[in-house]
Amino acid sequence: MSAGRPGRADVTAAADRIGPYIHRTAVLHSRSIDALAGCRVVFKCENFQRSGSFKMRGALAVLSADLTRAQECGAVTHSSGNHGAALALAGRLLGVTVTVVMPATASAFKRRAVERYGARIVDCGPTLEERETALAAVQAGAEMLFVPPYDHPHIVAGQGTATQELLEQAPDIDTVWVPVGGGGLASGAVLAAGGSGVRVRAGEPELADDAWRGLACGVRQPAPPPRTAADGLRTALGELNFEILHDYALAVTRVSEQAILDAQRLMWNCLKIVAEPSSAVALAALLEAGGDGCAGVIVSGGNVDLPTL
Amino acid sequence: MSAGRPGRADVTAAADRIGPYIHRTAVLHSRSIDALAGCRVVFKCENFQRSGSFKMRGALAVLSADLTRAQECGAVTHSSGNHGAALALAGRLLGVTVTVVMPATASAFKRRAVERYGARIVDCGPTLEERETALAAVQAGAEMLFVPPYDHPHIVAGQGTATQELLEQAPDIDTVWVPVGGGGLASGAVLAAGGSGVRVRAGEPELADDAWRGLACGVRQPAPPPRTAADGLRTALGELNFEILHDYALAVTRVSEQAILDAQRLMWNCLKIVAEPSSAVALAALLEAGGDGCAGVIVSGGNVDLPTL
Repeated sequence: MSAGRPGRADVTAAADRIGPYIHRTAVLHSRSIDALAGCRVVFKCENFQRSGSFKMRGALAVLSADLTRAQECGAVTHSSGNHGAALALAGRLLGVTVTVVMPATASAFKRRAVERYGARIVDCGPTLEERETALAAVQAGAEMLFVPPYDHPHIVAGQGTATQELLEQAPDIDTVWVPVGGGGLASGAVLAAGGSGVRVRAGEPELADDAWRGLACGVRQPAPPPRTAADGLRTALGELNFEILHDYALAVTRVSEQAILDAQRLMWNCLKIVAEPSSAVALAALLEAGGDGCAGVIVSGGNVDLPTL
Repeated sequence: MSAGRPGRADVTAAADRIGPYIHRTAVLHSRSIDALAGCRVVFKCENFQRSGSFKMRGALAVLSADLTRAQECGAVTHSSGNHGAALALAGRLLGVTVTVVMPATASAFKRRAVERYGARIVDCGPTLEERETALAAVQAGAEMLFVPPYDHPHIVAGQGTATQELLEQAPDIDTVWVPVGGGGLASGAVLAAGGSGVRVRAGEPELADDAWRGLACGVRQPAPPPRTAADGLRTALGELNFEILHDYALAVTRVSEQAILDAQRLMWNCLKIVAEPSSAVALAALLEAGGDGCAGVIVSGGNVDLPTL
């Protein structure tokens, strides 16, 4: 990692480190969606990524950047979502013992993923305070590597590899669309696109529009109440992520819950893929704002339980 | 088409004709499924194919083989399923007017697909007799090309292109697994694999095991009662298809309804793809029979409506 803020070279370095462990995920296309969007749209299927989301990239990037320490001391995170599962699998692949502090209220589906990948789960209560206390107890006296879900230069660089790969696979892309929650994927996309002339744009749920508000007024906003169905986007922007995205003047398009569900259905019907509601936010934003040229949409994850068919 | 039964050269010829109009569909892989199957398994995602199933290949192969006549006289089929939608889209792409005779009881989901692709729909009653009457009325006095869903040499050759493509994409495959209903996909796979040393094996629902019974006794069996959830596999084997598969001594593995639904869920959870129950039958059979070496599984289609999430 270069001193200070990460840059495009850090994305390339992360790609080299994590390459052997990730899927180079497929890029899909649907003429029906092109017709609705008014431009060509290609989808980068990070729902096909190992662990089921792009979070695998950042988790591998962090552990591989300081592998000896991680292997000696282990790594810990708090997450009831995709980051926890990704770190668990990354740890298994790299020989790092992983502990995930997880609220006892987390869904059985997400808990099973973390368990399946062999991480130790430490239960905590549902509040932020209870989580911090549990995390401190786990780390007490140990040199354990704390791996936050998005606010970290190696995480940002790792997530940027999704965009870097997409631009290699579809060099005609003019704009990359991502969902924005903590901002790891979005700030990574900004780094990866740096200097290429490719624009990055983001979608955010109306019910969790802290990025939109914060970037508009220049002050990072707290996390919104957890109301949106896009459960991966209920967090506030990280500090580093906010800095990168604010300097970039990221344009954020807000979308309704109905638009998110409609986009999820569209991906089901036209692409035949399983996408989380959070993943549908980027497409919903593209359809809301309208596209031109060639748009790349990053489908961030597919970890949603199968309903009874 | 060479005289008599189609062969591998017909598959290659079909691939050349239809190449510009189809997707070269992605091949996916999941280590979790490998572990369950006891061998490496790669999935050929024909659910990503245009019109949502491999049927697009056969429909294009038929129309393109006699294009002038098809464009002059139009084409007709009867189908409440994927073949109807595929022929409708193939007709639109090739400038052929398509009529689909469809029982008024067909699902709104499947009807919409045929309508969306611009075909004319002629309603008929639900019985075979009513369908035949409606079909005869449509064709009366016209030189319209009748395109059956599977019992046709160009259809077989066209469906064989799915296997040919898969073997190009994953040359280490030892066995190709397909679902068997009318037998278009299975007999096409036999032609495409011909002489390569690759084996073809099939899965069939226990509740619709006419292929298993017919191939065992050497006499083609009538269609089973429509009880299986794998609605694409409720038909009897076609005559040509039966001949090809009987000569090949196709091994068919029968699977329970529960095994089909479990395989569908597995593809959802591990591959993040939408697969019809019929599509899950091949994977269910592989898991039932056990695999070795490298298995290729053709995911035949993904046309299933999104349940409320």
